Amino acid sequence: MDYDGFFSAELEALKDEGNYRWFAELERKRGAFPRAVNRHEGGTRDITVWCSNDYLGMGQHPDVLAAMHDALDATGAGAGGTRNISGTTHAHVALEAELADLHGKEAALLFTSGYVSNWAALGTLAARLPGCVVLSDAGNHASMIEGIRHSRAQKLIWKHNDLVDLEAKLAALPADCPKIVAFESVYSMEGDIAPIEAICDIADRFGAMTYLDEVHAVGLYGPRGGGIAEREGLMDRLTVIEGTLGKAFGVMGGYIAGSAALVDFVRSFASGFIFTTALPPAVAAGACAAVRHLKQSERERAQHQARVADVRARLDALGIPHLDNDSHIIPVMVGDPVKCRFISDRLMADHGIYLQPINYPTVPKGTERLRITPSPVHGPAEVDRLVDALGDLWAQCQLARRPVAAQ
Amino acid sequence: MDYDGFFSAELEALKDEGNYRWFAELERKRGAFPRAVNRHEGGTRDITVWCSNDYLGMGQHPDVLAAMHDALDATGAGAGGTRNISGTTHAHVALEAELADLHGKEAALLFTSGYVSNWAALGTLAARLPGCVVLSDAGNHASMIEGIRHSRAQKLIWKHNDLVDLEAKLAALPADCPKIVAFESVYSMEGDIAPIEAICDIADRFGAMTYLDEVHAVGLYGPRGGGIAEREGLMDRLTVIEGTLGKAFGVMGGYIAGSAALVDFVRSFASGFIFTTALPPAVAAGACAAVRHLKQSERERAQHQARVADVRARLDALGIPHLDNDSHIIPVMVGDPVKCRFISDRLMADHGIYLQPINYPTVPKGTERLRITPSPVHGPAEVDRLVDALGDLWAQCQLARRPVAAQ
Ligand SMILES: Cc1ncc(COP(=O)(O)O)c(C=O)c1O
Ligand SMILES: Cc1ncc(COP(=O)(O)O)c(C=O)c1O
Repeated sequence: MDYDGFFSAELEALKDEGNYRWFAELERKRGAFPRAVNRHEGGTRDITVWCSNDYLGMGQHPDVLAAMHDALDATGAGAGGTRNISGTTHAHVALEAELADLHGKEAALLFTSGYVSNWAALGTLAARLPGCVVLSDAGNHASMIEGIRHSRAQKLIWKHNDLVDLEAKLAALPADCPKIVAFESVYSMEGDIAPIEAICDIADRFGAMTYLDEVHAVGLYGPRGGGIAEREGLMDRLTVIEGTLGKAFGVMGGYIAGSAALVDFVRSFASGFIFTTALPPAVAAGACAAVRHLKQSERERAQHQARVADVRARLDALGIPHLDNDSHIIPVMVGDPVKCRFISDRLMADHGIYLQPINYPTVPKGTERLRITPSPVHGPAEVDRLVDALGDLWAQCQLARRPVAAQ
Repeated sequence: MDYDGFFSAELEALKDEGNYRWFAELERKRGAFPRAVNRHEGGTRDITVWCSNDYLGMGQHPDVLAAMHDALDATGAGAGGTRNISGTTHAHVALEAELADLHGKEAALLFTSGYVSNWAALGTLAARLPGCVVLSDAGNHASMIEGIRHSRAQKLIWKHNDLVDLEAKLAALPADCPKIVAFESVYSMEGDIAPIEAICDIADRFGAMTYLDEVHAVGLYGPRGGGIAEREGLMDRLTVIEGTLGKAFGVMGGYIAGSAALVDFVRSFASGFIFTTALPPAVAAGACAAVRHLKQSERERAQHQARVADVRARLDALGIPHLDNDSHIIPVMVGDPVKCRFISDRLMADHGIYLQPINYPTVPKGTERLRITPSPVHGPAEVDRLVDALGDLWAQCQLARRPVAAQ
């Protein structure tokens, strides 16, 4: 077996399809974000980042950075152990309390990432509840899909955001088997929002647990940044709320919040929680500062929504097609991996604008897109430059101008 | 279905067995590690940590902390995106180059943890190599086991460190199917070391890839901290070397190193690499500083080995039983979860010594132990106190004094 030959051939196939990924190498500039430096072919160029998930610019918030500096000074770099073996510090405990409070739950549990939180929590719950069936929205994130797959529980995929399909699938199951309805609030690549209340109503009727990924909503929605469920007064309807500390909260890490018994159960049995070094205390402290700040400040959320509305209106005025949705995510549909890469390359080279092409496997083939994420730190001049550049490229590439209807 | 009732009952069962885990809440003191503060029942007490995997104290090394402070000042808190979508920074690229160099490989790839690196790399390789069979050492870490499980490839478990069994299992397989021999260099809970060269010889004869977890060896062994494979001049014999940045390197993160094609393949196909926020640049910068320092400094490694030999000799003098091995890990066998917890509690309460009881599922039931990890920052007075306290407790609990033979 020629292993390297096999790997190379698979990589060539990706390249032929236009789905090979080239990473842009950046250097963010604290205080100047979304401006950054891009290292490219031995040189550097100044660019503006338009595709970050640091949605509110909290990654450069003074409170967050001060908390991290202080924690480094006080406690050092890493945790030095798993949570069970010398790796639980006061910063972890404080952050878990802050997150439980954010979601109005009895308890919360930290993981090294949002990916690991979904994978480990869903994997553990679905594997250990005897005879459990997971009802998974067709649009769910890879981390949920892999967690469910790992559990080897029976999985039923319901049509994306389709209540009729969910209900039919639940109705066909035995009344007394454990069930988990797993879904997201804001879907990250489409930006559409789930009908949480109706899903909870159906789940309750059939005695199912509800597991909600609010990764693209925590910090961004609700009076204290608790997410869409908080905004809609539904947090107590969800069995588990899962979130990340790496997007709106600007640092890194993931978590679940739920009842004390559920959280203690996952803590006690989830391999992906148990057998790994804990987050550095400085990371936990920084995330904690971000959560605290966004609990009491509405300003970032208001500015964020205003900037999103602004960019959307400007794109509409030029007829540049983007998916309609009720969130902060603006997907500009291109529908071809090679064209998508071409536009992205031109934006970077000619306009200093960084919009990563989003291709397979992040989105289905044929739905390649540019995903714009405006933030409070993008100024009016930056919006002008983005919109002008996209207008030029649309003309140059003779791309369609009719608005694309939401899928 | 009463979900919380089910969770509570499972937790009660753990408590009845003595396997429920109570986390000790610590506050490490930068510059004073291994000293820390333990928060307990509303109060605090000063303690000495004897069970950290910050094996060399790099978590408080000035170079590591300076690199982290500088990166926070220069770039801010988080990466703000996945590696593909705005999350690749210069710090990540520089660290990957440093790690490839450390192991003499063409390339390296960062993950959010060592757990994720094993899970994602083994999961991807074993799933995507058509008809792949994984030969997994019986002592392998949970992260490897879960990765192999996730791949759904055929798995054959060979007896721990048993060359005859490995060879027999390989010989029984078809000559042309892809095969991965997965094992560790230093086994973390026993401290024994694999016969790497002999394993590579056998793997080569049968055309198998070799995948070596050096999580408990990187930074600690070899002239530049490349691990046991470096010490034995074997790095070029391994197809993949996997390591962590969260133990001897003192921060957080994981990685694989291998051929350019293999690393690019995992980069391109591993869900656990693709769909997650990148490590904060400051974490990557801190880890990079630790790797660089330990490449050119032998001092920490020499002091580490001397301290380990010292503690072992002192335990021997008192007849306190510990597993013999050739590494830096000193497992003191207790063999009962309740006794193990009792000794640990007394050490903490009466002597200010923190040694977490290691119980199931980290080790098999009946092999519960205290795992001592001496470091260069444990001074002679601290060694005295540890050994005296263990001596007292051995008398008090009437525990056996004969040395336990290595398993
Ligand atoms: C919906 C969703 N869930 C979970 C994750 C994983 O979170 P993290 O980046 O913290 O690993 C992501 C993205 O990365 C996501 O888009
Ligand atoms: C052998 C082994 N491999 C991998 C890991 C995971 O590494 P990390 O702590 O960086 O997730 C550990 C311990 O945590 C380990 O003991």
